Amino acid sequence: MSETIVIAQGGGPTAVINQTVVGAVLEIRKRYPGARVLGARHGVRGIRDGDYVELTDMAEGELRLIGNTPSAALGSTRDKPDAAYCEKVLKGLQRAGADAFIYIGGNDTSGTQQILTEASGGRIVFVHAPKTIDNDLVENDHTPGFMSAAEFVAGAFLSVDLDFRALPGIYVGIVMGRHAGFLTAASAAWRLDRNSGPHLIYVPERAFSVERFIEDVKATLARHQRCIVAVSEGVATADGRSLVETIVGPDRIERDQHGNVKLSGSDLNRAFEQALAERLPGQRARVDALGYIPRGYIGAISATDAREAFEAGAYAVQLVEEGGGSAALQYDGQKTVFRKVPLDAVAGKTRQMPEDFLKAEENDLAEPGLAYLRRLVPNKYKLGKPFV
Amino acid sequence: MSETIVIAQGGGPTAVINQTVVGAVLEIRKRYPGARVLGARHGVRGIRDGDYVELTDMAEGELRLIGNTPSAALGSTRDKPDAAYCEKVLKGLQRAGADAFIYIGGNDTSGTQQILTEASGGRIVFVHAPKTIDNDLVENDHTPGFMSAAEFVAGAFLSVDLDFRALPGIYVGIVMGRHAGFLTAASAAWRLDRNSGPHLIYVPERAFSVERFIEDVKATLARHQRCIVAVSEGVATADGRSLVETIVGPDRIERDQHGNVKLSGSDLNRAFEQALAERLPGQRARVDALGYIPRGYIGAISATDAREAFEAGAYAVQLVEEGGGSAALQYDGQKTVFRKVPLDAVAGKTRQMPEDFLKAEENDLAEPGLAYLRRLVPNKYKLGKPFV
Repeated sequence: MSETIVIAQGGGPTAVINQTVVGAVLEIRKRYPGARVLGARHGVRGIRDGDYVELTDMAEGELRLIGNTPSAALGSTRDKPDAAYCEKVLKGLQRAGADAFIYIGGNDTSGTQQILTEASGGRIVFVHAPKTIDNDLVENDHTPGFMSAAEFVAGAFLSVDLDFRALPGIYVGIVMGRHAGFLTAASAAWRLDRNSGPHLIYVPERAFSVERFIEDVKATLARHQRCIVAVSEGVATADGRSLVETIVGPDRIERDQHGNVKLSGSDLNRAFEQALAERLPGQRARVDALGYIPRGYIGAISATDAREAFEAGAYAVQLVEEGGGSAALQYDGQKTVFRKVPLDAVAGKTRQMPEDFLKAEENDLAEPGLAYLRRLVPNKYKLGKPFV
Repeated sequence: MSETIVIAQGGGPTAVINQTVVGAVLEIRKRYPGARVLGARHGVRGIRDGDYVELTDMAEGELRLIGNTPSAALGSTRDKPDAAYCEKVLKGLQRAGADAFIYIGGNDTSGTQQILTEASGGRIVFVHAPKTIDNDLVENDHTPGFMSAAEFVAGAFLSVDLDFRALPGIYVGIVMGRHAGFLTAASAAWRLDRNSGPHLIYVPERAFSVERFIEDVKATLARHQRCIVAVSEGVATADGRSLVETIVGPDRIERDQHGNVKLSGSDLNRAFEQALAERLPGQRARVDALGYIPRGYIGAISATDAREAFEAGAYAVQLVEEGGGSAALQYDGQKTVFRKVPLDAVAGKTRQMPEDFLKAEENDLAEPGLAYLRRLVPNKYKLGKPFV
């Protein structure tokens, strides 16, 4: 065999996305001895520009260390190729003599693979291997990267809740997530008891109201003498505008190159700070964005997540043999199973939390949501119960 | 023996402050069988108000679980008692029949114990057991709580640096620390190689200049195509004003009940965001405050820190026998040793980073600072080297 297979990573990094690269490389060595394996730097951009890392002969021990390393070791990209860009990528793959291209990423990545499949006329096999901390890919029970990020968020909110038991006040933690609230919901995974925070959880799946928020905080303070809030950066008001847009005003908001409202500045922090200072004056309140740390934190890598990310890479190689597609992680009621789904089944779609994951009236998770978290983010710590 | 010993926790929580309570309780059981042990809720406030937890007969297994739990299980307080408040605390101790009071906290706590010692006329023994993530107690090589918080910060910056290798840009991470930069410096502990971030470290020990900062960032971008910055929330300009005060203006700053400038809002985030947006337009930049998570994060508890915090509690009980004082963690060149120092040697003083920990010309650590971190915050992860 003289196969050449190209691998790349796209979109936001995760703590385990390198496991998928390593799982693919080692599976290629098994299935296609002598095959050439090229890692493209910074996703499709590296293919377009002919910028590759030679992975063919890299020692397995060295690869395994890369697998343990958070974030995308090959580099990533936010480029969403259109037809013209895809044409350049296709030419790049042809120049490299590629027989197959495995692209690890989210729904945009699956979309890119779909365009490339159509453009190539079947001469190259295109596979999408899933990753995203947002956990928002349709056809998947969960996605590689989510469990680790969720473990970080669960531990962070457990810890902050204990902090605020000791020194009471209001804490608002802003968590990544534009359209889906899974990662924010993970803040509830390690609650110690019924008194534990987060006491309020706001996700993009539900309309946000500042009035309602203030009332919720007041009621929580009355009950618990503290209030821990987890909120997705992408929460939106009932008219569908993001909270940032609602508060900052349409003229002053920043947008990225795709026209999406920029959520990552401190505008949202400030909005919460101001609302709390005005409506609950004198209350100790702290607003923090968890920022980028959850998605690649070295100290919260889930062993199950790492293993599944590795297996997703190996399964992607099986899909090369099967002519391409998207590798989906599904759940058979007992364990995670890998299934092939069409690229366009995943491309351009966003999975939100199922309706029954959230309580109808309160800003909190319902039992099916909690059960999902118990399965994916089991608490590994044995702790005592504070005296306050 | 019918000793009664009161224990309390003061100031900001840490990940291991409960180990000190547990170490003290178990040592009391050894040295004073039959002694009564009372935990005061929320520090001296609980003593003033007669609000205690009975720890005398709590099962050791249950206590050990409390020890594993981050944050102050007895609750904490920011109250800094004056003479009148101390009089009430003294009366509270007398009502409880206390023979000794062990107070776990920072330099303010040692100050409280000093006032109480003088007011009690020798009838009660007062001991200060150290804790602070700021690592800013004089007479100590390091303080319980620092190593765990430092491990979080080291891992967070390692992870963020890897993230920004994959998707380049500027990252500014704001770390707790009003007067001492130890915790911010810990961001450098786990650099993978000479290319690793943080590339710039700004601490309260050095005057901050926005002009210089922008030049530093430009130079770093030119060299590394990304720029990771670690900055203490307490950085101040050459005139001694905090950066928040300098940027926000003296009229608009908020102060806490002690007259200290409030550093915990998003003003500092916004100041950095604005400076970068104006001076380096078009550059992807992200500013986040790590906030409260470093000081009690369940996933970054240093085993050495936990052990030493436990031993600090046991040593505090030895100091009860020796008539009171402050337990100091010193370093004999080989290992940590506990020594008794006078309460007023620690009270009201702040230890900053030694001059030789910082490079003279660059905003970075010098070798003695790095060696200190290698000793206290060894990297426990084996990682690969990214391809970008």
